[in-house]
This record gives sequence, structure tokens and C-alpha cells, in this order.
Amino acid sequence: MAFLDHIALCNQHELDRFRPFLVEERHVGWVRADVAWHLEDYPRVFTVTADAVSLHPHLIGHDARSAAVDEVCRALHVKWQTPALRGERYRVAQRWSDTPLMTMDRGVVSLFGVRAFGVHVNGFVRDGDRLKLWVATRATDRAVAPGKLDNLIAGGQPAHLSLQDNLIKEAAEEAGMPEDLARTARPAGVISYCLEDSWGLKPDVMFCYDLELPADFTPRNTDGEVASFTLMDVDEVKTRIRDTQDFKYNVNLVVLDFLIRHGVLCPDSEPDYAEIAHGLKQGW
Amino acid sequence: MAFLDHIALCNQHELDRFRPFLVEERHVGWVRADVAWHLEDYPRVFTVTADAVSLHPHLIGHDARSAAVDEVCRALHVKWQTPALRGERYRVAQRWSDTPLMTMDRGVVSLFGVRAFGVHVNGFVRDGDRLKLWVATRATDRAVAPGKLDNLIAGGQPAHLSLQDNLIKEAAEEAGMPEDLARTARPAGVISYCLEDSWGLKPDVMFCYDLELPADFTPRNTDGEVASFTLMDVDEVKTRIRDTQDFKYNVNLVVLDFLIRHGVLCPDSEPDYAEIAHGLKQGW
Repeated sequence: MAFLDHIALCNQHELDRFRPFLVEERHVGWVRADVAWHLEDYPRVFTVTADAVSLHPHLIGHDARSAAVDEVCRALHVKWQTPALRGERYRVAQRWSDTPLMTMDRGVVSLFGVRAFGVHVNGFVRDGDRLKLWVATRATDRAVAPGKLDNLIAGGQPAHLSLQDNLIKEAAEEAGMPEDLARTARPAGVISYCLEDSWGLKPDVMFCYDLELPADFTPRNTDGEVASFTLMDVDEVKTRIRDTQDFKYNVNLVVLDFLIRHGVLCPDSEPDYAEIAHGLKQGW
Repeated sequence: MAFLDHIALCNQHELDRFRPFLVEERHVGWVRADVAWHLEDYPRVFTVTADAVSLHPHLIGHDARSAAVDEVCRALHVKWQTPALRGERYRVAQRWSDTPLMTMDRGVVSLFGVRAFGVHVNGFVRDGDRLKLWVATRATDRAVAPGKLDNLIAGGQPAHLSLQDNLIKEAAEEAGMPEDLARTARPAGVISYCLEDSWGLKPDVMFCYDLELPADFTPRNTDGEVASFTLMDVDEVKTRIRDTQDFKYNVNLVVLDFLIRHGVLCPDSEPDYAEIAHGLKQGW
């Protein structure tokens, strides 16, 4: 492994197998050719052409669009074993700050190649000049990346919350963290990647936060997502990322961003420094 | 002005007016069509076709290439008033860490659209929870951006120095800073942009460093490049960047990167947050 391999792994996709997904003539996602073929069965919801998949223009307004797409996705799940709905709503918009055109269930976001947002928190402790990172080990019963290493706090971004409120909620659930402490997390940037999964495309954007923790804080998981937490020296984190796939695929990118911002990677000694820094924004 | 306007200003170019510049069949720059036409007069140095400008393959090795291009540039300066040589050498390579194929004088780097590297240092002071940035006002006799606001320390990257050694040199010249203090600067990332100038293309990459300074340090310019220094509250810096063109064009990008990394810009309140963060890497 090398640092850049993680970036390459998170950006594997062949866009020529996909057609743009349009809502109100705005390009908000990507639909794979085989998925588009199935969507042709629902002409009152989707207009499928060789060039694009569009939400039918007679579907006006946020709620009508969201309900119509949910209904198709429930039917496809039964007929074609596409992913089930999970009951968590994501925004569908061209830009993060745009008023959403609709929402979509988290389970089917990749089916429409809609950009999903998330919040990741690097929890760290200063020990003199040394940095130590709190690293979570994911529970072995997780559907995604069981047993892999993860950030202290991480979560997809539901449509109805601010990023900070989501961070506070996840901090309580995943790390048993009091709200006052979670509020001290500081936004520090964003990473992006674009990866094909079994059903479609994940053009994901993760807002990265740094949270300096007092030495006497110990995280305690409350929602079963995390098996254990370890306070790891930043040089060990760097080595584990460089040499292994121990971290969850996309968490490598969040931590690489942390290592760059905190001067753990150095442009005089890391030959791929500029390529790594640019690669962390590759999914845009 | 808006934050994104500075990014757009630094990325104005029309690449279809340029042809790739190749050395040893490696793409290392861009030459504008009118410049290519003039280079046709030097067939022992350049092979000019409709698709590309290549350094002649009989020019073997770093020194022969560098000397041959210098000679052409001196002749062009006399005949056609292209920029004069400045006596400072830049590396020519595909990647920052590659062994350079040749060097090129700083004055003519944009004529060949070769990627130039630089070091910029955000010098800051903590005042309780507040951040203050040391901001330089450039001397009014500067050829580039006279009187504009600048980073505490900034400089182009000469071929023969490490980034840290260049930083230490510039810190002494521009800010009268002792080496011990300059050595505490910490690499924190990289920004890039791609801008046309009067003669060609500037696909520039700037390595960004943060340097936390003690309250009793006051910078003192020794090389005449800086008229004065001001310790500016980070919120004033943010407002000046958003609302004015007071800062040198590319320094806006370096400081925006600082504002993102230090949580001064916040993704819940800045609608262009993700676009700014990605835009700072646009020149790659």
C-alpha cells in the first residue's frame, strides 16, 4: 500500500456506464444503464432517454417527488432486490447549501448517484508535542466495513439537521460524549471521492472536524456501532494508513487530510504530498 | 466580491490557445500559439508542431537543456520584449518530487506554462480563543501587486533548496525572523490555481505553512519587499478577503485555506464552503 492507493480505491468508477440524473433539469446524480432500464417501467415517475434519466416534470414539489421515488424504490426492492429503504432521509440538490429539490432514502442514494454528505470527527489529544488520535474499531456485525478502524465520530448527514447538530447527535450515540464537549469540535475542511458500489455511484462529500479532547475523556459507545476505542499515536496511525487496509476505505482519506493539516506529512519528505492533498478532493 | 470570486480570478485561462510543452516526451507545461510561432525560429532547440512544442531530443541532460532554453529566451527578450531572465532557477518536472528534467529562469516560467512552486507562511498569534494574523503590506515599488496585502512570509521555490530551507531564507529576508523560530513553521497543505498572464500560463502550486508566533515577536523587513506589517484579527482578515481585493490575488487563496483549516469558515453558515475548499485545489 501507499497513501495514494487509498485515494485510488475510493475513486474507482467508469462514468461512461452512467447517465445523468436530472430533477427540474438540474443535474443531481448518475444512474447506471441497467438501473435506467428498470426505471423505464415507471414512466409516470421517470423519463428515461439514451442521454439521461429525468424525474417526470409533472412531479412538482419536494414531497411529491420524494414520495414517488420512494414508491418506485420499494417496488424495485421486491422485484429486483435493489437496496431496501432505511428510513433516513438525505437531501437531493446540486449544491450542499441549495434548497433541496427532494429528499431520498439513504439506502437508495447510490442507485441515483446522488451526492451524499457526511460528518467525520478526528478526536485527538495533545501529549506535549505529540498528537494522539482516538480510533474506533467498528463492530463486527456492521454491514459496511465490519471490524475496520474508524474516526471517533462519523455519520451520514440527514436532511433535517445542521452539520453541527448531526455531529452532536453522533457524538452522543457513538462516543457517549456530552453536548458541551461535542460543541467544541471545529470544522477543518472537506474531502470528496467518487466510488462505484454494487448498484450505482457514490460521489460522497465529508465535512471534516477536529476535536481536541481532554486527557481524562474516554469515549464510550452507546449504539452498538463500535466494538472498542484506542488512543493511537499519530505516527502509528500514519504507518497503519500507509501500509495496511485496517482503516475503513474512506476514513483513510479523512485521516490523511488530518495528517496533512497537522504537519505530520511533510512536503520535503513525502514525495506524493501534492498528489495526496489534491487527491482528497477528487470526487468533486 | 465573494470568496469564490478570488478563486475565479486566479483560474482565468483558455487552454485551447495553448499547446502542450514536452521535454523527453513528458508533458511539463503549456505554450501559447503566438509564443510557439516565435519558437519555430529556433529549430535546434524546439520542435514545433500543430499539436505540441517539444524540446529538441538531441538536447540531452539537465544542463544542456537549461542553457539552450536560456539562450533562446535572451534572444526573444531582445527581439520580441518577452520577459527578461531574473537569475533565479525553477525546476521543470512533471511532479514536484521528480528529478528535474531541466531548470528554467523564473522570469520565463509562464512563457512555457511550467508549474511553479512556492512557499507561503501564515504567521499567527493566539490571543485567548482569538486568532490574529500577521499581514504584510507589499512595498509600492514591487513589479507584482504593489501595495497589496500579503502573507507574513512568501516566496517562489528555487530549484536548489528544500522547501524548509527556502522558508527559513525568506523568513530572514522578509520578516527578520531568526532561524530557530522559522523552523517551527508547520506544513499544513497546498493550494493550486491556473492563471493566464501577459505571456503564457501560470499553473502555480503553493505549499502552505502555519507558524504560531509568540506575542512579543514583531516582524521587520530586511529586503525592501514589504512596506509594513499589521497584526490583524482573523475576522477582519475574513471581511477584507470577502469584500475587497486588498490582498494580492493569490494570497486570498492561501488565507482562505487557513480560514477553513482553523474553523473560521463554517459549513453550516458559509453556503459556498465546499465549493471554496475544492476551488483552492483547482489548478491541478
